[in-house]
Amino acid sequence: MSNATLSPAVARGPADHDVRDQIVAAATEHFGRYGYEKTTVSDLAKAIGFSKAYIYKFFESKQAIGEMICANCLREIEAEVRAAVDVADRPPEKLRRMFKSVVESTLRLFSEDRKLYEIAMSAASERWQTVVVYEERIRQLLQDILREGREMGEFERKTPLDEAAGAIYLVMHPYINPLLLQYSFDHAAQAPVQLSSLVLRSLSP
Amino acid sequence: MSNATLSPAVARGPADHDVRDQIVAAATEHFGRYGYEKTTVSDLAKAIGFSKAYIYKFFESKQAIGEMICANCLREIEAEVRAAVDVADRPPEKLRRMFKSVVESTLRLFSEDRKLYEIAMSAASERWQTVVVYEERIRQLLQDILREGREMGEFERKTPLDEAAGAIYLVMHPYINPLLLQYSFDHAAQAPVQLSSLVLRSLSP
Repeated sequence: MSNATLSPAVARGPADHDVRDQIVAAATEHFGRYGYEKTTVSDLAKAIGFSKAYIYKFFESKQAIGEMICANCLREIEAEVRAAVDVADRPPEKLRRMFKSVVESTLRLFSEDRKLYEIAMSAASERWQTVVVYEERIRQLLQDILREGREMGEFERKTPLDEAAGAIYLVMHPYINPLLLQYSFDHAAQAPVQLSSLVLRSLSP
Repeated sequence: MSNATLSPAVARGPADHDVRDQIVAAATEHFGRYGYEKTTVSDLAKAIGFSKAYIYKFFESKQAIGEMICANCLREIEAEVRAAVDVADRPPEKLRRMFKSVVESTLRLFSEDRKLYEIAMSAASERWQTVVVYEERIRQLLQDILREGREMGEFERKTPLDEAAGAIYLVMHPYINPLLLQYSFDHAAQAPVQLSSLVLRSLSP
């Protein structure tokens, strides 16, 4: 989000922050009605009543606006997952809750808000930076649960931590990534339960 | 593939079998050049030099031809997977080979033969009967390996066999189904190794 016309130090006051929020809110509304792919920055500018040049002062592209919407959405999912994990005391239950809540939050957000789905699909297929960061944070959360479980003697310690976390992340990935999740709607309710049980068997000391 | 105009007993001699093969071969060629989705039975008839009515004597729809092509392709993958499994003596190695070869065969067939990919995508998204049968056969092969491993004392026996097989099949599914495999090209080489290790840890007695 470089900005050639304004120096960031001058341009980014609280008022700018408000304008950015206003653009994101209007874009979310507009994308929802007409679709992310079909909407251009010109369409957005017209709809919001700003000039195209004014929007470009705050976002360098349509994707930059989409990334902001997507980041907000992924932060919401991550917060729900962390809240679900925090309720549990023991690492095995944390792992079950993590898997269950990540699938439920993702499905709910996308079914309540079909407009977000198209953005998420673009984000996932084009590997937007926000998605890479989100996936890394989920992977880190998983690794933290594993480490805690090893320290408490609940999980085996022979497998290198990285390897164990990486393999479990691969098991979860089709249910975390919306591109793949769309093909798993049929068993999205059952899969986290069955897969968590398998993963926990693989972790038994 | 019902046939209202000819009685099957009269119509289905060896000569008919040859004509069916001829139609399938020509269709494979034609789909490959122009795409499965875009090709109609009329296009096929023109290209092969048969009348449309004549083709309909052997196949009730374009999908019926596509299913035959798809079935041939899936039989080939299944034969390769079974051959890979048969080389190994012990069930853990059979399981590793099964996972590795199913991914390799699927990827190779689709990259060598891009024309098959579009048919496989239709087959997978519309849940053609050939795909349902194939997936069930792969699941059965997996369950046979598990049963053998339990009998030989290599795998744990506490988990119900159905449950263990079902969960492992869910782990493999994103790498078996072409709709999902397209999003896993990046880690298609590493994933079977890492996931087999995880699955084998889950099976340890």
